[in-house]
Amino acid sequence: MAPQQSKTNMAVAGAALGCAALYAGSSFAGPSAPQQSLRGSSATIASFASQTPAAASPASASSAAALAPVLAGGVAVSLGLEKRRNRRNAQKSGRAAVVACAAGKVGCVGIVGSSGAVGKEMLACLEDRDFPTEKVRLFAKRAAGDVVESKKFGKITVEPFTVEAGQECEVCLMAVSGGFSEEFSPQIAGGPLNTSVIDNSSAFRYKDDIPLVIPEINGGENSSAPLVANPNCTTAIGAMALWPIHQKYKLKKVLMCTYQASSGAGAEGMAELEAGVKAFATTGKVPKPEVFAHQLPFNVIPQIDAFQENGYTKEEMKVTWELQKIFGLDDDVKIACTAVRVPTLRAHSESITIETELPMDPDDVRALLEKAEGVKVVDEPSSLSYPMPLNATGQYDVEVGRIRQSLVFGDKGLEFFVSGDQLLRGAALNAVIIAEQAVAKRLEA
Amino acid sequence: MAPQQSKTNMAVAGAALGCAALYAGSSFAGPSAPQQSLRGSSATIASFASQTPAAASPASASSAAALAPVLAGGVAVSLGLEKRRNRRNAQKSGRAAVVACAAGKVGCVGIVGSSGAVGKEMLACLEDRDFPTEKVRLFAKRAAGDVVESKKFGKITVEPFTVEAGQECEVCLMAVSGGFSEEFSPQIAGGPLNTSVIDNSSAFRYKDDIPLVIPEINGGENSSAPLVANPNCTTAIGAMALWPIHQKYKLKKVLMCTYQASSGAGAEGMAELEAGVKAFATTGKVPKPEVFAHQLPFNVIPQIDAFQENGYTKEEMKVTWELQKIFGLDDDVKIACTAVRVPTLRAHSESITIETELPMDPDDVRALLEKAEGVKVVDEPSSLSYPMPLNATGQYDVEVGRIRQSLVFGDKGLEFFVSGDQLLRGAALNAVIIAEQAVAKRLEA
Repeated sequence: MAPQQSKTNMAVAGAALGCAALYAGSSFAGPSAPQQSLRGSSATIASFASQTPAAASPASASSAAALAPVLAGGVAVSLGLEKRRNRRNAQKSGRAAVVACAAGKVGCVGIVGSSGAVGKEMLACLEDRDFPTEKVRLFAKRAAGDVVESKKFGKITVEPFTVEAGQECEVCLMAVSGGFSEEFSPQIAGGPLNTSVIDNSSAFRYKDDIPLVIPEINGGENSSAPLVANPNCTTAIGAMALWPIHQKYKLKKVLMCTYQASSGAGAEGMAELEAGVKAFATTGKVPKPEVFAHQLPFNVIPQIDAFQENGYTKEEMKVTWELQKIFGLDDDVKIACTAVRVPTLRAHSESITIETELPMDPDDVRALLEKAEGVKVVDEPSSLSYPMPLNATGQYDVEVGRIRQSLVFGDKGLEFFVSGDQLLRGAALNAVIIAEQAVAKRLEA
Repeated sequence: MAPQQSKTNMAVAGAALGCAALYAGSSFAGPSAPQQSLRGSSATIASFASQTPAAASPASASSAAALAPVLAGGVAVSLGLEKRRNRRNAQKSGRAAVVACAAGKVGCVGIVGSSGAVGKEMLACLEDRDFPTEKVRLFAKRAAGDVVESKKFGKITVEPFTVEAGQECEVCLMAVSGGFSEEFSPQIAGGPLNTSVIDNSSAFRYKDDIPLVIPEINGGENSSAPLVANPNCTTAIGAMALWPIHQKYKLKKVLMCTYQASSGAGAEGMAELEAGVKAFATTGKVPKPEVFAHQLPFNVIPQIDAFQENGYTKEEMKVTWELQKIFGLDDDVKIACTAVRVPTLRAHSESITIETELPMDPDDVRALLEKAEGVKVVDEPSSLSYPMPLNATGQYDVEVGRIRQSLVFGDKGLEFFVSGDQLLRGAALNAVIIAEQAVAKRLEA
């Protein structure tokens, strides 16, 4: 990737995230019908990654490389990405998430919005997971003409997006704004190659006829729809821990408070935090914010996305709407969230309290989560081990810990803490696993 | 204050905070009887500060100065302390907290542990609020011999602590470790001058016969006990908003998630965050932590103080125990907290969800809190105004905002967000207002 590309990339990145940065004009925008039941079969096929462990390392390296331009020299090390990379590989062979594959490959996977933070992670995931495609095409407006070096897929020249080009791919991963996706995703989906479009924006998440998918939860058939919506990062990370618990104990109430990283506002958000911290270190002052509504370094901002009429923000309501749709919950299951931006670079954390219909034993829940796909239990007080964003960065699995019986809800209540990589489970990885399921189905046919 | 003092100060500061830094050996240490009812009369006497507005500015300046050694050149500006200082003064004349005073002064107020983060703020509060004392004496082990310049109380030479010296003060403010306080506070309390000891450690908070006081809530007679315990910072900040609501609507459940600043671990904690951020900016690496169990810059740490047998940490249990004791709550009022350290310098934030016996209207609650002492409603979504630690830094009042009906508990539920200065309401200010009430009573007699 040409070094001069990074600035351009950053400019696009904000829009490329389904997880909106901040305020925007705030008319009330509820989902049309969030209660649609989409609980699908939890299709699990043999792990591709575990079949080809050697394939993992160069791609993981490229995942770290995708982060590198945003973070100045050496930062990747301070974030522990070297360690993480190795750990991820170790993990993958053991428990990596659902991976689809029969024999064979598709001809082409396209990434639209390839130069943003999520788009870059999508390419890294395709490489890292040895995605069964002959070719990857990258589409981005301002980065068009740049050449991206991919160890797995060769040199890729970034192209300007066209509907025709999108339709030449069996799978299109959309890492673009809601407006762009709303216009173009339906034009690409289906078509001559029966293209599968997997959209990371919020444009289609609340539409009755569009599946909203976390592949380990409601994938399977849903992943093979012509147009599939990827959930918001905050929802996806929390859902990984909530789903196994819901299946066994039935959720009644979910109360979530988040600790969300600057990466939720794209590469621009991360760059603003980093630049703010550097300015503070050298001049003692933090420059006026441009990406965030308020200074993020040394601060927390209890607002993400636009305020709604009910006093919650859209980011908070997404958790309610999306968990209802993905889990197929009844209206009497109550969900509320407080979404807060904190000065971290990457990986979101969530403190979650639940009440369930059936009593729970924290040890049983721990054992249940240890077997769950895409989840890693990190919960050992004696060694001060619990989920933290710094450790979850670059990891496929969502870390869950601090599991304890709730003092408020007694034996039908539980509190726990999760940390998950916002760009992976919260965006790129989730989309790529949906694509794996779609491709497996396609190759079976 | 001699510049060479600052390093020494930092070394003491951790111990000087009731709000313990981190891990420590973790045997279960519950309170002996947290349910003791101490709801006192909410005595409010004319505001001293508002009588003498001119007196406020030099002392506020000294409050900012107390922070300055910790934060390298110019940092105070980036934290907005200049602005804050002015705002605090403006605020004070309007609504500053309960202030005690009849005519006259006591002879001496002592600050034990004067060189720690809380001890310094105590002196600043005494100056800022024109505390009715002829003299202030400062006690600290390693800083003994240093001379502190106080605009209000002249040059003060720091002394080594002795019980005799403590007994020469009518009021002793203890900003020391629990162990130190446990040994010496009872030896000072009472005595020839009927010395009032106000202890910021957790040594006496859960003892039946020792009042645990937030002066606006259960002060009055309780403030005049020979030994009074100051609550934990997290409790005190949340309680300011919870108390007026409880009085009108009766609390049933309180669920709190915190966003706690490095200042909770004293000047050392703040220094480690600042040094970590500076190292990151220059070398790209963050040094190994010494104060915190894990790296704090660009991370969040979901553990403060030692783990208890029930899976909560002691910091979390303090909120339960202390709210029960201060509010005089029945056992069926359920309280749970998740305490999380975030990379901010000063001022804690808390996301709070409550269920009450009576239905609430968010507008009514907003109006109620606007009239409450020690609280400032900052809740205007249209101007992106809500509580943030950066704005609460250096402020006496606790900011409350994001007030909305809870999606989980309906019209008997409420969510809100608070930010309060951990070193002021969370420690020094609360202690000084207790002392003001004690002195007012003493001078009346």
